[in-house]
Amino acid sequence: MRSSLAALPASKIREVANAGLGRPDVLAFWFGESDEVTPPEVREAAAASLARGETFYSHNLGLPELREGLSHYISALHAPVGVERIAVTSAGVSALMVAAQLLLSAGDEAVAVVPVWPNITAQPEILGAKVKRVALHPQRGAWRLDLQELLDAITPATRALLVNAPNNPTGWTLSRAEQQALLAHCRRTGTWIVADEVYERLWWGQGDEPGAEAGPAAPSFLDIAAREDRLIVTQSFSKSFLMTGWRLGWLVLPADPRGQALEAAGKLLEFNNSCAPVFIQRGALQALALAEDFVPGLVARLKAGRDTLLDGLARLPGIEVAAPAGGMYAFFRVEGQDDSLALAKRLVTEHGLGLAPGAAFGAEGEGWLRWCFASKDLARLGLGVQRLAGALGL
Amino acid sequence: MRSSLAALPASKIREVANAGLGRPDVLAFWFGESDEVTPPEVREAAAASLARGETFYSHNLGLPELREGLSHYISALHAPVGVERIAVTSAGVSALMVAAQLLLSAGDEAVAVVPVWPNITAQPEILGAKVKRVALHPQRGAWRLDLQELLDAITPATRALLVNAPNNPTGWTLSRAEQQALLAHCRRTGTWIVADEVYERLWWGQGDEPGAEAGPAAPSFLDIAAREDRLIVTQSFSKSFLMTGWRLGWLVLPADPRGQALEAAGKLLEFNNSCAPVFIQRGALQALALAEDFVPGLVARLKAGRDTLLDGLARLPGIEVAAPAGGMYAFFRVEGQDDSLALAKRLVTEHGLGLAPGAAFGAEGEGWLRWCFASKDLARLGLGVQRLAGALGL
Repeated sequence: MRSSLAALPASKIREVANAGLGRPDVLAFWFGESDEVTPPEVREAAAASLARGETFYSHNLGLPELREGLSHYISALHAPVGVERIAVTSAGVSALMVAAQLLLSAGDEAVAVVPVWPNITAQPEILGAKVKRVALHPQRGAWRLDLQELLDAITPATRALLVNAPNNPTGWTLSRAEQQALLAHCRRTGTWIVADEVYERLWWGQGDEPGAEAGPAAPSFLDIAAREDRLIVTQSFSKSFLMTGWRLGWLVLPADPRGQALEAAGKLLEFNNSCAPVFIQRGALQALALAEDFVPGLVARLKAGRDTLLDGLARLPGIEVAAPAGGMYAFFRVEGQDDSLALAKRLVTEHGLGLAPGAAFGAEGEGWLRWCFASKDLARLGLGVQRLAGALGL
Repeated sequence: MRSSLAALPASKIREVANAGLGRPDVLAFWFGESDEVTPPEVREAAAASLARGETFYSHNLGLPELREGLSHYISALHAPVGVERIAVTSAGVSALMVAAQLLLSAGDEAVAVVPVWPNITAQPEILGAKVKRVALHPQRGAWRLDLQELLDAITPATRALLVNAPNNPTGWTLSRAEQQALLAHCRRTGTWIVADEVYERLWWGQGDEPGAEAGPAAPSFLDIAAREDRLIVTQSFSKSFLMTGWRLGWLVLPADPRGQALEAAGKLLEFNNSCAPVFIQRGALQALALAEDFVPGLVARLKAGRDTLLDGLARLPGIEVAAPAGGMYAFFRVEGQDDSLALAKRLVTEHGLGLAPGAAFGAEGEGWLRWCFASKDLARLGLGVQRLAGALGL
């Protein structure tokens, strides 16, 4: 085995979940997925495809009709994006891996905004690239970007900026003005922006910014970039369509006259997974057809979960937390508790409350806990808050 | 984009297929898949899983029951392999990518036996590793390994030997004696063996070796290696179970006291695709349950296709071909035709016959053509031979 693999992070969330094995009463809020099943129409479309016998290889870049559907979906939310810029991937994480392979060779430098889910920073390391971490700063429970600090970190030696906004785990989101400043800076340094925008639809607005309104999606680099900009957006069906277990995502690539980005992505998709199952893509097509009927309802249910959880946490003394601008997580800290892994293990083994330790998202998250509020059962969230209160002796 | 990506091979098979666009009468034998749909029981098991709502994330390493099922399946064919050595992957090609990531850093050396399907040699190059190619040698249409040449190429500087046997495209297979010599040699040099054995069940025996019998599977390194040997076997549900479009495979890893190989594979799976869809794994479990009823019939049908095609080709003058020991391909050359891509394009555009050019598998395959005989329709194979005869003016 390569010795460098030992340095890759093992999942601390899984470590906590393993500590809870054998406690059937655990209320698990540790993973980043809703407890709702995929909509029946989507499941039925996939089953119908299987019944029709669509069990053969398909195009590396995805079914033409799915790429067409994605083009309409993205263009309605953002600026026009043609099919020649879209590649379907086997999961959002695979979109990120292909993006990393498109850009990073051994020894290259990437800058990442952290804390962040660990996959984004692990992928460059698998390729032998170096990751320079720029930390968000907590301020009364909310996490803030020091824009100048990030701009200073991105130099002509930086091949790629890796940024996940709305951010997992903090809920922080890039503002439009910050995106514009980053894009202008990266144009000067020749740096690629890899924007992981999978939470764009789970978006509550930057309520503390005057005039900020929620709208159908968080600010996206696709709203402001030119077609030719060095921008790769990675996306997933997981979060907006309750399709975590389907492993389907997509890439938006720059347009270039000879289609080189799309051609290179197609080659890399061939060498990573070759193609996504047709029957899964048929389900995704149905999800896109439902999107504007389905997503607003999902977002409303998530908002109810968010408000229930945040209200409950706000009533507990010694908890530092702020309402997230986007995503499906409350990220909070408990006064006097600095070892998030130890606390998360104690919560699950002694109190049946399953949360993700902040240390799972890098040293910058240490001392914090992540709570996924994507639960259709608000009472379950309330019971979780009671268990936390009990654990803290409140 | 990384400049090294330009050197990665674009699919020459796809280039031929594109040349045939707009010819609806093309008889396509270019891809490596059967024209039979996945068995209905397998499709129904996946649909039932979808109906039950199994749409959530699952374990990085695969469903415990699928790993258990694979352990029984593999152990019945070869030597005992416990679940602690098995990881489920999103496609056989993903198993190979994870194996490459487990072993190869930038600058490392891998030795590959060629010609071979291009993914195996492209993956190390994505990781910045170097590939030393050791060619098989054609002899009256059959491809032979010069064992000493391969042994000489594998030195203590060689991190990994990459070998696909039964081989795509040539049908060549490693004999038991060759496997034993390679294993002994690689133990001395400290070289990992990455054995891509996805065609092991599509196996016709080494008929020209006295005493060789077909048996249920081609010789596998799993038959002879110790549990601790530096051996990774990559596998797929695609070929033996008619599941190409499902994108499901597996890895067999070495046993080590601390489970380091499995742990590292789990991390890499997380960072590549995270997990395979549960409903796809339910289909695969059903495939394993059917295996010993289903696979022999499939092999018999493939044998009929093989014999039909080989008989037809053997009747054409100027064709150099031999019956393959395993796999689903006839690899042959036409006297006086040295440019396989040009010939394949001419065959599809002028004669409606879709074959894969040998150059798609490396320079060593130049001048040859690959014909997939996995067709349930023997008359279709016969018609293809007629078209080839017509194209050659016979």
